[in-house]
Amino acid sequence: MKKVKIPEATIARLSVYSRFLNRMEKNGVDTVSSGEIAKGTASNSAQVRKDFAYFGGFGKRGVGYDVIDLNRNIKEILGLNKEWRAIIVGMGNLGKALAYYHGFSTRGFKIMGLFDNDPQKIGEKIDTLTVQDDQVMEKFLDNNEIDIMILTLPAEYTQAVVDRVEGKGIKGILNFAPTVIHASEGTQIRNVDLAVHLEVMSYNLTHSINKEQE
Amino acid sequence: MKKVKIPEATIARLSVYSRFLNRMEKNGVDTVSSGEIAKGTASNSAQVRKDFAYFGGFGKRGVGYDVIDLNRNIKEILGLNKEWRAIIVGMGNLGKALAYYHGFSTRGFKIMGLFDNDPQKIGEKIDTLTVQDDQVMEKFLDNNEIDIMILTLPAEYTQAVVDRVEGKGIKGILNFAPTVIHASEGTQIRNVDLAVHLEVMSYNLTHSINKEQE
Repeated sequence: MKKVKIPEATIARLSVYSRFLNRMEKNGVDTVSSGEIAKGTASNSAQVRKDFAYFGGFGKRGVGYDVIDLNRNIKEILGLNKEWRAIIVGMGNLGKALAYYHGFSTRGFKIMGLFDNDPQKIGEKIDTLTVQDDQVMEKFLDNNEIDIMILTLPAEYTQAVVDRVEGKGIKGILNFAPTVIHASEGTQIRNVDLAVHLEVMSYNLTHSINKEQE
Repeated sequence: MKKVKIPEATIARLSVYSRFLNRMEKNGVDTVSSGEIAKGTASNSAQVRKDFAYFGGFGKRGVGYDVIDLNRNIKEILGLNKEWRAIIVGMGNLGKALAYYHGFSTRGFKIMGLFDNDPQKIGEKIDTLTVQDDQVMEKFLDNNEIDIMILTLPAEYTQAVVDRVEGKGIKGILNFAPTVIHASEGTQIRNVDLAVHLEVMSYNLTHSINKEQE
């Protein structure tokens, strides 16, 4: 594949398209058009085709895209043809919401452990897992190959946890705390800031930009 | 201002920059460089300057940007110089997490009401608000000017709630359910799909893209 820099927004949309294609697969649909994909994902068909063009267009035929083929291709691009193993640190409401969220496991992200330092929370059963004392986290990481750490901690505790797991094989950190964290080079950090979504909405409302019409 | 199409990623970053500038203001910092903004927001200084260039560059002087001026400008662009009033519908773990999240109110998003249809949850006190029966939601919207509805409902209930509030003045809907919803034209819909963040991370890890080095 050519070394073209692919916009992150395209990757994010591929993820959304793939979820839509999963539903189509489940419903036994064989082929879809870019218009159908757009309609099912609040995108538009020109955008869908443009996103696909980065990867050679995925061999559309007269009748549309082959649902199974297209989804397999997209999942492979996204790196979802393997299982990613994750832990969640911080079992507040957000941590619990993520632990209960089945949208992760169905996409190949397996939550392997839940951690907190609150004695009230340690031992609590959440879905199929039990919240563990965060003091055993390093040992857990030594004994289990974990790729991704999801941090749903108060901002002031976040960096300390990142420092503690240095060298334990964590490849990516998804940080929900409104703070910038630093990890060793080679560890991918993604900060999820929920207020951003409201502020982009505020911008669009203020400037009368209708997202769906773009 | 020229009618240049500004990338949504730029708007999202402005939101993050502004949060950083808030902290600088609080700490009594007068001026910042693009490098400092980049470091504090996991961006890079070329990106910061490129984002600012869409708005004329914000009058950087030799010493850097004036923190207060810059933040006021960005907030005005984002439409944060007014109060946005929101309700949250669905008081599961995610709804609760958002209701307790003070990052919204400090940015001018005031949560005015919480709703659920579960008798176990109705009447529960969450922060300063009490969960209301979702049957009174329409009446609440008649009596209160609400701009934004945040939906943290199971996917299958989401569209029905959107249909019920049609014509009640809701300008924007932030939907956390993994389903595409439809509202009347002019209502801004943003779908927040938490799995997307993991899948973009999976893509970056698979293709050895280090986000912070970009």
